Amino acid sequence: MTLRLLQEHGYDRLTVDAVAATARASKATVYRRWPSKAELVLAAVTDGIRQVAIAPDTGSLREDLLRLGFAICQQARRHASTMAAVLTEIARNPAIGDALQQAFVDQRKALIHRVLQKGVERGEIEAEAISDELWDLLPNYIVCRALIPGRPPTDATVQALVDDVLMPSLTQSRHRGS
Amino acid sequence: MTLRLLQEHGYDRLTVDAVAATARASKATVYRRWPSKAELVLAAVTDGIRQVAIAPDTGSLREDLLRLGFAICQQARRHASTMAAVLTEIARNPAIGDALQQAFVDQRKALIHRVLQKGVERGEIEAEAISDELWDLLPNYIVCRALIPGRPPTDATVQALVDDVLMPSLTQSRHRGS
Repeated sequence: MTLRLLQEHGYDRLTVDAVAATARASKATVYRRWPSKAELVLAAVTDGIRQVAIAPDTGSLREDLLRLGFAICQQARRHASTMAAVLTEIARNPAIGDALQQAFVDQRKALIHRVLQKGVERGEIEAEAISDELWDLLPNYIVCRALIPGRPPTDATVQALVDDVLMPSLTQSRHRGS
Repeated sequence: MTLRLLQEHGYDRLTVDAVAATARASKATVYRRWPSKAELVLAAVTDGIRQVAIAPDTGSLREDLLRLGFAICQQARRHASTMAAVLTEIARNPAIGDALQQAFVDQRKALIHRVLQKGVERGEIEAEAISDELWDLLPNYIVCRALIPGRPPTDATVQALVDDVLMPSLTQSRHRGS
């Protein structure tokens, strides 16, 4: 509901009054739970986007990456306009960016690391294949495709990304024998 | 100049009057060159972002990809807030999205295809390595890193992307011997 108001009005024009009115709650109630507008919006976004919180564990790295990718793809297509609005607001309100970082990016990073770590434990990839620079290649590319109009990502996008890019990249050190 | 007004006011609140006033031109002059607000904004964006229009041609696919990546990285960091604003406006005004597609995305696609095609001609990669699904992996990932706060892309990001992801992916069919 906050999400809908955010999409309609943008962050600057969103008021806690409007949120309270739409929720039929008092402004005091809303402020008690979310002391600042940034926190209210962030709660709505993280709640609305409903991140995949549990790492898939199929016993195969490729399969885990595919499942994660399909889930991110669905979310990204559904919430593209919200995400675009949030990115624009972040440029103007760094506090949202910091909160988003903690609530969203860090959680996603932990999830992807868990999937890769299991791949290392099963001997599918080397520990060095886990890159701190590019850990977000899968989610970022998929989200970017959803944000830029014309070519929304599909399951085929995820599959090409996993099979033709991520798996060859993650297993390359084995081919080089290093 | 239009770009600055766009960043300050957003597309909806941007007026051709304001653009004309800032440019010390008449509204008629502005309208003669750009019949619609969408076209005016797009001209400002494509002009302001100043896309790399000529494909690098160093004689090495890796080197060409690095040069392209460094250039995109610089652009993306410089124009992140404009790009975020444009993406938000696209969600509300599909006409901008269509124009952006033609002026920007198609040009970038042609550029990347030229670089990959030269790699094929030099025998560095197979023709089948050129993917219609993931041709925009390099620019999209870099731009996404610039849009999401906290971890702006650097030359090291580009280098990791080219050396650890793109080159292994593009040359994988050689390793499989297909």
